[in-house]
Amino acid sequence: MRKILIIGAGKSTSYLIKYLLDKSVSEELHIIVGDISIQNAKKLIGNHENAQAIMLDVFNKQSRQSAIENSDIVISMLPARYHIEVAKDCVSYGKNMVTASYVSPEMEDLDVAVKNKGLVFMNEIGVDPGIDHMSAMKEIDAIRAKGGKMILFESFTGGLVAPESDNNLWNYKFTWNPRNVVVAGQGGAAKFIQEGTYKYIPYNRLFRRTEFLDVEGFGRFEAYANRDSLKYQSVYGLDNVKTLYRGTMRRVGFSRAWNMFVQLGMTDDSYTIDDSENMSYRDFVNAFLPYSPTDSVELKFRYQLKIEQDDLMWDKVLELDIFNPNKMVELKKATPAEILQKILMDSWTLQEDDKDMIVMYHKFGYELNGEKHQIDSTMVTIGEDQTYTAMAKTVGLPVAIAALAILNGKITTPGVQIPITAEVYEPILKELEAYDIKFNLYDVPYLGYNPLNI
Amino acid sequence: MRKILIIGAGKSTSYLIKYLLDKSVSEELHIIVGDISIQNAKKLIGNHENAQAIMLDVFNKQSRQSAIENSDIVISMLPARYHIEVAKDCVSYGKNMVTASYVSPEMEDLDVAVKNKGLVFMNEIGVDPGIDHMSAMKEIDAIRAKGGKMILFESFTGGLVAPESDNNLWNYKFTWNPRNVVVAGQGGAAKFIQEGTYKYIPYNRLFRRTEFLDVEGFGRFEAYANRDSLKYQSVYGLDNVKTLYRGTMRRVGFSRAWNMFVQLGMTDDSYTIDDSENMSYRDFVNAFLPYSPTDSVELKFRYQLKIEQDDLMWDKVLELDIFNPNKMVELKKATPAEILQKILMDSWTLQEDDKDMIVMYHKFGYELNGEKHQIDSTMVTIGEDQTYTAMAKTVGLPVAIAALAILNGKITTPGVQIPITAEVYEPILKELEAYDIKFNLYDVPYLGYNPLNI
Repeated sequence: MRKILIIGAGKSTSYLIKYLLDKSVSEELHIIVGDISIQNAKKLIGNHENAQAIMLDVFNKQSRQSAIENSDIVISMLPARYHIEVAKDCVSYGKNMVTASYVSPEMEDLDVAVKNKGLVFMNEIGVDPGIDHMSAMKEIDAIRAKGGKMILFESFTGGLVAPESDNNLWNYKFTWNPRNVVVAGQGGAAKFIQEGTYKYIPYNRLFRRTEFLDVEGFGRFEAYANRDSLKYQSVYGLDNVKTLYRGTMRRVGFSRAWNMFVQLGMTDDSYTIDDSENMSYRDFVNAFLPYSPTDSVELKFRYQLKIEQDDLMWDKVLELDIFNPNKMVELKKATPAEILQKILMDSWTLQEDDKDMIVMYHKFGYELNGEKHQIDSTMVTIGEDQTYTAMAKTVGLPVAIAALAILNGKITTPGVQIPITAEVYEPILKELEAYDIKFNLYDVPYLGYNPLNI
Repeated sequence: MRKILIIGAGKSTSYLIKYLLDKSVSEELHIIVGDISIQNAKKLIGNHENAQAIMLDVFNKQSRQSAIENSDIVISMLPARYHIEVAKDCVSYGKNMVTASYVSPEMEDLDVAVKNKGLVFMNEIGVDPGIDHMSAMKEIDAIRAKGGKMILFESFTGGLVAPESDNNLWNYKFTWNPRNVVVAGQGGAAKFIQEGTYKYIPYNRLFRRTEFLDVEGFGRFEAYANRDSLKYQSVYGLDNVKTLYRGTMRRVGFSRAWNMFVQLGMTDDSYTIDDSENMSYRDFVNAFLPYSPTDSVELKFRYQLKIEQDDLMWDKVLELDIFNPNKMVELKKATPAEILQKILMDSWTLQEDDKDMIVMYHKFGYELNGEKHQIDSTMVTIGEDQTYTAMAKTVGLPVAIAALAILNGKITTPGVQIPITAEVYEPILKELEAYDIKFNLYDVPYLGYNPLNI
């Protein structure tokens, strides 16, 4: 039996563990799931004979090292900042490693040591990053193989609520870390390239500079720009591309309404509010509005934001019960973002039978034989329930498939890497199709942003 | 002869040096002006027999220390970050010291050593900080002396162009460091207290939440909130005040127009633009607008900001010639704020015969014998020319007067301090009146922000 050590049994590991357990007999696998809570680990493996749950505190050097030493490959599903200690041990004991997280500078620094030992450290092999890399590079490589020259690449992902569970005015629920949603876009201007020109969008305009995306069978979405559109420009070999844009997908109307919170300063995470514990939701909103004892918080809110009372945006605000004087914040010394997150979690938490949805949309523009072409590529995955979510599926399956492929010697190129080579993406994307994670490709007219060539 | 060493012969030292030279015979003073450019120093002292210019590089320990050792009191007019080395030497050699800058944590740390040696280190004794402290504390102390209880304090200062030189649509020219004007309000939400409630304004709303102030003989001004309204709450003894607000004054309409640049991200100082050197002004503006080859930069600008072409805001933008495709940025790897500053300096630099103006406005609300009262206090100073500016006068005179008072043993309380005690503000404010820097006081009805007691 080959031993696979999975460290961390959080939300995104259900499919990962299920996949490996399902293969454990045919592939002769023994799955060891280590978590700080052994109950978490036990819940996900049930009574499976090829699996074992262990208590593993990643900060306990001895238990961490002995677990790693005793495995054939290590999958770290810990929060990204905890990978590095695991990674260093994997180098020491000569174990391959897989994570779904962004490559940190510390991880990157291990590259030479990893190569010297002939190890494979595969990172960014979840959904975003992960499936986005693989599905994009497959098309980009195919376009290049037929002699095409890439001129445009746009890529969008959204973690959303499935249509059958979409029952609020925002068409949104938290399907992943709510905090990331509340602070999304903060920390600097979004930067991207359109038709060879750098464009910059400050945070306070980000949610008003959206674009629409239509996905067959799922209707219309909108996308706002990610801060880091240029992050993979060189990695993808797109240094001479004219348009490069990455964004986050929401249902149409979300961003315009979200912008209300941005404008008033309610998403700010840079300072704490002294007496937040004893504030009501209404007090919280009022802290961002001018003092005026003769006017209601509601009217001040609408006036500041110039919203009519029959605007759907106003219904969205009311739906959150944000003007309630009796609901208390109850968080000590919280930032505005933390308080807003709490208020939103009242309304946007997935209910027991709610399903989530992952949507991805790529646009590939290229020139071939003097003509411009475009391929659009879309993928939608819907979750089964609250354990087997679309997020857990699209994050966990690529991780699991990659781990098994590395164990079986099908992925061998050593180094700290991300899944952008055919050796990696070909087999994984192929197998993902069997799990209904597949991309629909559409040949569409190339328009770009300057169709009239002005 | 008592020797006064002035380190730094920049913009704000003209009046300071003139005052001391004028007093040099009667007070038996010898003025030594040290600057990295001996020419700067020489220009300001002329051929005055009681003055001497020396080359002084503050980073050259030996020349710095020997100059300090050889003086009876030291005035540092260097940029604030350079004071600390001078201050340490003043402690070593037992010299009193005066600066117009905010007390840095490092300066504060010297307090015990300064007290142990019985020295006076007077800071924040320019205009803002400086005259604002003194004029505010004088009224606050007077209100308390008659048994009043402070309930409201608001304080506003503006460095503006004098009415006779006010000839652009923004009613604004740079009278001090342009950079501070361009980045004003960045780095966190503005926080203040209104009627006992904390209020927060994010940067992107700061220039839309202004209030009006009318100054007799000078018309109407507006003010936007400073980030640090609560900074002197305890120092002024205002811990139980219901309203505390500090702001920056502009002519009416400036903030609404300035907000256009804020909204588009053109004041951002947190990242650099790669090819800024080769951009035209027009390219710069366009970088913050959506790509659209069929639309002019002008129309995109108006559309994004929802400005009509007959709105005065639009005329203000045009006046800056910001859409000029032939004027080049010419700054390498500049931030948006740096580029905007350059563009504004084309239009807002004081011309040779332009005069500047300092405006200050305080509101003091208090309760006495169960009744509420308010005193408003205003001060306007207009510059003489480009050397003897209102800024140099209001910064330099209090520094000079304080230095002489310390030298003459009229200010003796030791320690690192700011001018908030009667020992300091009484004689200085009195003497400033002789130089026409005086406050007009008005008894006005107390309104506060809740006049109907709702």
